[in-house]
Amino acid sequence: MVIDLNADLGEGFGRWTLTDDDALLSVVTSANVACGFHAGDPVTMRRVCALAAERGVRIGAQVSYRDLAGFGRRAMDVPPDELAAEVAYQIGALDVFARAAGSRVSYVKPHGALYNRTVGDAAQAAAVVAGVLLAGGPDGGLPVLGLPGSELLAAAEKAGLTAVAEAFADRAYTERGTLVPRGEAGAVLEDADAVVAQALAVARDGQVVAAGGRRIAAGARSLCLHGDTPGAADLARRVRRELQDAGVSLRPFA
Amino acid sequence: MVIDLNADLGEGFGRWTLTDDDALLSVVTSANVACGFHAGDPVTMRRVCALAAERGVRIGAQVSYRDLAGFGRRAMDVPPDELAAEVAYQIGALDVFARAAGSRVSYVKPHGALYNRTVGDAAQAAAVVAGVLLAGGPDGGLPVLGLPGSELLAAAEKAGLTAVAEAFADRAYTERGTLVPRGEAGAVLEDADAVVAQALAVARDGQVVAAGGRRIAAGARSLCLHGDTPGAADLARRVRRELQDAGVSLRPFA
Amino acid sequence: MVIDLNADLGEGFGRWTLTDDDALLSVVTSANVACGFHAGDPVTMRRVCALAAERGVRIGAQVSYRDLAGFGRRAMDVPPDELAAEVAYQIGALDVFARAAGSRVSYVKPHGALYNRTVGDAAQAAAVVAGVLLAGGPDGGLPVLGLPGSELLAAAEKAGLTAVAEAFADRAYTERGTLVPRGEAGAVLEDADAVVAQALAVARDGQVVAAGGRRIAAGARSLCLHGDTPGAADLARRVRRELQDAGVSLRPFA
Amino acid sequence: MVIDLNADLGEGFGRWTLTDDDALLSVVTSANVACGFHAGDPVTMRRVCALAAERGVRIGAQVSYRDLAGFGRRAMDVPPDELAAEVAYQIGALDVFARAAGSRVSYVKPHGALYNRTVGDAAQAAAVVAGVLLAGGPDGGLPVLGLPGSELLAAAEKAGLTAVAEAFADRAYTERGTLVPRGEAGAVLEDADAVVAQALAVARDGQVVAAGGRRIAAGARSLCLHGDTPGAADLARRVRRELQDAGVSLRPFA
Repeated sequence: MVIDLNADLGEGFGRWTLTDDDALLSVVTSANVACGFHAGDPVTMRRVCALAAERGVRIGAQVSYRDLAGFGRRAMDVPPDELAAEVAYQIGALDVFARAAGSRVSYVKPHGALYNRTVGDAAQAAAVVAGVLLAGGPDGGLPVLGLPGSELLAAAEKAGLTAVAEAFADRAYTERGTLVPRGEAGAVLEDADAVVAQALAVARDGQVVAAGGRRIAAGARSLCLHGDTPGAADLARRVRRELQDAGVSLRPFA
Repeated sequence: MVIDLNADLGEGFGRWTLTDDDALLSVVTSANVACGFHAGDPVTMRRVCALAAERGVRIGAQVSYRDLAGFGRRAMDVPPDELAAEVAYQIGALDVFARAAGSRVSYVKPHGALYNRTVGDAAQAAAVVAGVLLAGGPDGGLPVLGLPGSELLAAAEKAGLTAVAEAFADRAYTERGTLVPRGEAGAVLEDADAVVAQALAVARDGQVVAAGGRRIAAGARSLCLHGDTPGAADLARRVRRELQDAGVSLRPFA
Repeated sequence: MVIDLNADLGEGFGRWTLTDDDALLSVVTSANVACGFHAGDPVTMRRVCALAAERGVRIGAQVSYRDLAGFGRRAMDVPPDELAAEVAYQIGALDVFARAAGSRVSYVKPHGALYNRTVGDAAQAAAVVAGVLLAGGPDGGLPVLGLPGSELLAAAEKAGLTAVAEAFADRAYTERGTLVPRGEAGAVLEDADAVVAQALAVARDGQVVAAGGRRIAAGARSLCLHGDTPGAADLARRVRRELQDAGVSLRPFA
Repeated sequence: MVIDLNADLGEGFGRWTLTDDDALLSVVTSANVACGFHAGDPVTMRRVCALAAERGVRIGAQVSYRDLAGFGRRAMDVPPDELAAEVAYQIGALDVFARAAGSRVSYVKPHGALYNRTVGDAAQAAAVVAGVLLAGGPDGGLPVLGLPGSELLAAAEKAGLTAVAEAFADRAYTERGTLVPRGEAGAVLEDADAVVAQALAVARDGQVVAAGGRRIAAGARSLCLHGDTPGAADLARRVRRELQDAGVSLRPFA
């Protein structure tokens, strides 16, 4: 019973802050660090990398469309060669700060609209993977973290990269194992006990509980926690504690 | 008789082009590649690095203030920790494309207002050097290319980095060995023969000819050519040819 | 026999230039001026507006997705309220310079991907129109220039705005009256005589010639000329001259 | 006994929020609204303008250097013609939303580094005023809000604009009537009672209390409150209440 805990961090920009980086870096084992395209200025990137390295948290590049005004949440029809180069650019920029802290960028996870788009868009998924390959790293390329069954993970595997599936502690699942779309009622688990229960199901049993109550294989090596809502850090701490109390080992996948 | 030839390259952005990268990469031995802060999008950075590597041209990070609208030509009071992190960010982003092409970023040269500001501003010069150190590299940090006598080169030396002085083929010098300010008459040598003569003086005699005719020690290991004016590529080719005809070896300093 | 000639202008940004604004402002009767989101800095906007006003050329706001890096050519899923506000922002910014020159923004035309997207996407078309209404102006809102049959013009009409259809002098049409997609062979008319012939057909006969030779009603009150290709200004001048020689009056629609 | 209360508002950007706009728009009589260059996206600008108009709060354009990453706090050597055009651009963009809400932009106040720079830099002060004139408005140009004795207000007066002096409720003053620089001890009044006392001194007696205790003529028609610190809204509410209790009328200067 081993699981990785990941969260999006470093999502401020200049004067603006968003994620409680300090608190969450005491909870997670993997930090998806914003690289400047949807959030994340160089000073923040440096500080988050330093703190992550100090605490043994793995650093991942949270790559995004170039869209500060939309926080990377607006899907864009970026031509594949541009998208690949933009992904590599972001990985390289973050890696400077990871190295300076004595660590390295250890994996890549797309953010927001790019994450959602590459679930079903094979061309953009391939472009993200091309960007990861371009950026290189150990064994020819970094692991990619994403949704089970996504085009992104399929493209990563096809390219010989390590594809790592994640589950969400606070998102409801359909009977087919996909996420209940955000617009629909009950898409996000608001109740802390429900979030903890889902986290335990994923980590201990390898399952998520679908909306109807049916249990479905999750096949997730990492569990995503959210860090940008009020009370997020407290909830994340509780999930971590309950997982440990249940005998689950928390360990980075990378 | 050995000299390096450097020029600013990759200074387009998206739809816009500026420098004749292809032509100049057949002339120079070192390419100062824009890293996205004053110019340079990821696709252009990738292409310029690939071409540079193919032709044995060294790749340098042409770091800048974050100012696309002003092309990095507007001096900014950036606090030292921000400036250092911004410099490191740019080096890391470029290095991805240099590595992908089988090369590496081999040196750093500030652009525009940052170049001019760090001639006399010790705090910003130190911040640029701190960014270079942050980005790391062989022997603890990359060589820095700049103006002889500048605070930038002094800070680089103090930090144990290799400080490389450059001269300008097409700029007039005062009797004290500083550049005639751009606003003044005759600041830029318009005549091709005068440019060639100055290039030869620098490369062969280690001297520049001051406005009054007096010859001054240049102490430059690199000669900067400009690539963003009409006819720039033709003039650069002629300078290269005449240097070679005069028995000067063209070799990267890095 | 009256037609308006429009072209995209002011599409430089800071150090970068693209369109030959001076030459084209002697040809067109309506200038689609970039407003800073895909191109167009304040200095350029001011200069183009001053020159347009001086020459009696109408000023239109060429509104775009916020995408300098992609020149507004990458479609974006911008939520309607954001898109409407972004469109209004651009119109207001341009209007300052039009007023300062003694003129006003007289119409709105979407650029690039926003133009293409609003041909068939009713939600984004409605958002652009909402932005035009938000920006106000004479009779409640400015005229909208676009493709005949587009959702954009339908939404403009539904909102009580003046919807103005345009034809392209240098684009091939299908038998159904739509543009041959840019990827396909013959999509862009390369031959100057063919461009002139099509311009005459549109202006004199109200028709375009489809790929197969069949003539189709164009119903266009404006003819779009391109300004960002080599030789564009010369070709535009010739189109203007031949239209005038054929007795066509060139007059702004707005 | 009449005074205007102003505060910086709308200083979020996309996903990020900063100022408590809703609360402060119930306190101030003039809102300095960010225009997109240091903060302020079109959706936020629209919302703040609508709320301000609804509550009878005057709308001012809080113009800035183009520097999202630095929140407009990094002084920039912007050439006068660029600065003037950038100022006008921002005023025009904001005015669209003010008009749509049934109001107008009623004055201009520079933000951050531009505010500080134009205290002593006559060339930049003149450029800001040139931008205000370019943007036009009633009687040839909008009123300018700034520091008493600043080059900015001098340039505004020289140009025939209304120059409005402001005092700060929470900043300490030197015996010469200038602000104690932020770096120095005691520069910002932390104690709520001290802030209220200073507000009363300015509004009732036309004075500020210098560090040594001496009272100096303030000559301010507006009092600036800060909205971006924790507890700012509560303190602003208290200042408003105590001013009213002391018989001070709160009324916009514009």
